[in-house]
Amino acid sequence: MGQWVIYATGRRERPVDVHRKRADRPSLPSRDAHCPFCHGHEAAVPEIVMELPARDPKYWQTRVVRNKYPVLVPETSVQEDQEGIYRAMTGYGRNEVIIETPAHNVDIAAMSPEQVRAIIETYHKRYVDIYAADENIQCIIIFRNRGERAGTSLMHPHSQLVASAFVPGCIRVQERRAKEYFEQEKSCVFCDIIGFERKSRKRVVFENESFIAFVPFAAEVPFQVWILPKGHQSDFAKISDQEKTDLAGTLRDVLRRLDEQVQGPDYNYIVKSFAKQNRSAPYLHWYVEVRPRLVTAAGFEIGSGVHVNHSIPEEDAEILREA
Amino acid sequence: MGQWVIYATGRRERPVDVHRKRADRPSLPSRDAHCPFCHGHEAAVPEIVMELPARDPKYWQTRVVRNKYPVLVPETSVQEDQEGIYRAMTGYGRNEVIIETPAHNVDIAAMSPEQVRAIIETYHKRYVDIYAADENIQCIIIFRNRGERAGTSLMHPHSQLVASAFVPGCIRVQERRAKEYFEQEKSCVFCDIIGFERKSRKRVVFENESFIAFVPFAAEVPFQVWILPKGHQSDFAKISDQEKTDLAGTLRDVLRRLDEQVQGPDYNYIVKSFAKQNRSAPYLHWYVEVRPRLVTAAGFEIGSGVHVNHSIPEEDAEILREA
Repeated sequence: MGQWVIYATGRRERPVDVHRKRADRPSLPSRDAHCPFCHGHEAAVPEIVMELPARDPKYWQTRVVRNKYPVLVPETSVQEDQEGIYRAMTGYGRNEVIIETPAHNVDIAAMSPEQVRAIIETYHKRYVDIYAADENIQCIIIFRNRGERAGTSLMHPHSQLVASAFVPGCIRVQERRAKEYFEQEKSCVFCDIIGFERKSRKRVVFENESFIAFVPFAAEVPFQVWILPKGHQSDFAKISDQEKTDLAGTLRDVLRRLDEQVQGPDYNYIVKSFAKQNRSAPYLHWYVEVRPRLVTAAGFEIGSGVHVNHSIPEEDAEILREA
Repeated sequence: MGQWVIYATGRRERPVDVHRKRADRPSLPSRDAHCPFCHGHEAAVPEIVMELPARDPKYWQTRVVRNKYPVLVPETSVQEDQEGIYRAMTGYGRNEVIIETPAHNVDIAAMSPEQVRAIIETYHKRYVDIYAADENIQCIIIFRNRGERAGTSLMHPHSQLVASAFVPGCIRVQERRAKEYFEQEKSCVFCDIIGFERKSRKRVVFENESFIAFVPFAAEVPFQVWILPKGHQSDFAKISDQEKTDLAGTLRDVLRRLDEQVQGPDYNYIVKSFAKQNRSAPYLHWYVEVRPRLVTAAGFEIGSGVHVNHSIPEEDAEILREA
């Protein structure tokens, strides 16, 4: 929102072209003796925060652990500091790892719908529980990195959660723009986007009772997908039980399509929710953003903040629909 | 400015750690039969825009050509379009390649000071000439991508220039913040930063008569370096002949230090200048930003816009000073 993206399809023919290039997805064993996230390796993780139990009481469906190499930690006070013209703050927060399955080698696209739903259930439980338990937390970001190009260091299927005592810049900018739109148009910009996409259908990839997945009009990278609850919902905390099932179905479907049609790219996805203080704002609407890592941002993108996309959103959507 | 960066040095010990990892820098021949940027391969480039002649009139020092796979093109009119709630605009602009040397294998750190100065001279000439020749252009970004992780597709030493008919979002945000600072403090934020860094010296890497290089207080990535003219200068167009020599010396020095101490990382650098309409604003101050590509941004960074840096700026500066 409020950002230009450049569509330069001629760049597909560049001498080195990574468009739709297959990431070398390693074939993994179902259990790895050195993996801290595999079942039975509890001693290798710093602290188990929660588990969703499996039918067999010896196992678990999902497990949440503290990140051994955390981005932020709760063992500090929230303190601001000044060095001349600069401001610093102690890095208060939480960084948890959501282990998505005891199996080392079953990625989301290959999981049962029930298992994917258990992951969503776990995201939701931690999201609600952290806000309830820690009043310092101002924002929670849940995300998944698949593959080395997406920044992951461990192959066992897992997501992460970062809860921070400040509201990140990107989130504040998006909130401000959504608010400006609301004040002008008297409606939620995300609801208006959903309405427009459902009518035009050109960019829609998948739809079920409560969720819609589409390639955004101004997609920043090839095969970017947004997944939104179709009804207005400002806060991820408010997701219903039926919606959890529908989100799991949508997410699994979209990732399967990417695996089939774009040959298993590395990707990040992010559950985009907003600052705690704006959780019931009528102009906000949480969503999941899926970003395949098929291209490398270079100097122009870094210097300008403008993405150069050599794909066309409508074509990407068509390719994904064909799966 | 106005952005948080998280310093998480504990993350250096992660199982897969890319900190100070050597990029596999290929050893290249001095001339490559298939390289469009090598001397004698004029037929392989779309159009030669300018050349700085060499002493030997058969050769050139630098050559500027149109990018064969341009991000933006001038063969269109600047036109806005609307699709429902979305806005589109024809991609008007220019994308030029600055071939830095006829030699296929001599990177900036290994060039003579005169050759690096010729590159700066070329940047400056194109910057000034494009603004003079094309009134549609609102912003010019000059940048260099070294290595595959930095997004380059051709190995022959080259930089690029993108001139656009719109002002990119990142630039507008930076301008706004610098303006806010100026209104409050009655001084240029960049000048204040330079004054502070020169006094503290903790983060300074190199300094000569007219330029200073330091690791910024809130460095977003390991070994990030800013190079600024020490005197207030809002616009890159205003660089003097002596300053060109000093900038060339500083840039070459910084890149040599990176090659020696961080073992030749892939990097981007960007000549950060601002919108045409603000070129003489008292609150703006152009600079060069060098960003080594040692780490991969993952879901948290993408979702939040917050960088997680596992280096400490003061330590990085010390390492670079020791070269």
